[in-house]
Amino acid sequence: MYVILEGVDTSGKSTQIDLLKQKYTDAVFTKEPGGTKLGFNIRKIILDGEISSIQAELFMFLADRAEHYEQIVKPNKNKLIFSDRGLISGIAYAKTNYEKFSFEELIKLNMIALDKDMPNLVVLLKIDKTHIEKRLNAKKHDNIEKRGIRYLLKVQENMIETLKKMKIKYIQIDASLKIEDIHNIIIKNIGNKYD
Amino acid sequence: MYVILEGVDTSGKSTQIDLLKQKYTDAVFTKEPGGTKLGFNIRKIILDGEISSIQAELFMFLADRAEHYEQIVKPNKNKLIFSDRGLISGIAYAKTNYEKFSFEELIKLNMIALDKDMPNLVVLLKIDKTHIEKRLNAKKHDNIEKRGIRYLLKVQENMIETLKKMKIKYIQIDASLKIEDIHNIIIKNIGNKYD
Repeated sequence: MYVILEGVDTSGKSTQIDLLKQKYTDAVFTKEPGGTKLGFNIRKIILDGEISSIQAELFMFLADRAEHYEQIVKPNKNKLIFSDRGLISGIAYAKTNYEKFSFEELIKLNMIALDKDMPNLVVLLKIDKTHIEKRLNAKKHDNIEKRGIRYLLKVQENMIETLKKMKIKYIQIDASLKIEDIHNIIIKNIGNKYD
Repeated sequence: MYVILEGVDTSGKSTQIDLLKQKYTDAVFTKEPGGTKLGFNIRKIILDGEISSIQAELFMFLADRAEHYEQIVKPNKNKLIFSDRGLISGIAYAKTNYEKFSFEELIKLNMIALDKDMPNLVVLLKIDKTHIEKRLNAKKHDNIEKRGIRYLLKVQENMIETLKKMKIKYIQIDASLKIEDIHNIIIKNIGNKYD
């Protein structure tokens, strides 16, 4: 079972992943981007700022996703896999950063990267403006502050739009709920099979 | 004017490019893959054999093509550009190596890489089995001998199939003609504008 946790920064994703690690000790925990040698090199190339083409950058992220699928997801599909981010973020960020790509186009490209093998469940932690502001003030988030709260909300909107357009089972959880309540909703949706 | 020269190894492509360099001294001569910093790094990653996913490799080649387009083709479109290989090879090799991709899919991906800005002319040097054998015997071609003549012919067949499926102006020249005759056919098709 392949579960992807999605949510913009401040949504509490990392906290939930820590709790899931304690609960499901046999599960595979992974994240995107990264996790493979190719992913490491791609990340380095992107951070070095050596790509001038928007399309080239998109293809590099897709290559990372494809390699992550091949090396980590595919061989562990009989296990419980939790991924910190995945194609939903990928599509939402690409759509937010570069309006020129359509959802349909981005979905098709990501289907190729995942060899049409979609996640069994996407858990989306949805946060509202007030809580983003509150959490940003409590913590220093350099990268996010540069781009602003409106940017985060736009990415989140595009995540929801992506999920609506795809035939993937997903749950949307209010990120302002108590940490334990969110955790319980997630494990309820994983089901007893992996208890 | 963006002209791509295509043809499998032994087709005489390099010889023709040398003649074109003498004729069109103001033209931009480029080649794929390579030609950009990203292309150099992508090539290195692929040659190092660190990619296990077929899709990831395809996306890496597409990233290289997109960057080559952005950095070399797009800023020089008012000039005469000759590229040693391009999307036609890209599609044909991908199709030959990985049957799972359809022509339609590969064409769409390459349209994204080139931002839908197709070459103005593709020159295909077509060679037959007898001439491939003859030229391979005359010269040592380690890489090709490994894969065989049948492989080269299949790639060539897929190049022709790609050109037929796309709306790109192309000329197909018999690679067994005299070097000078081939050269004259090419320059006749470039037109007087660049004489």
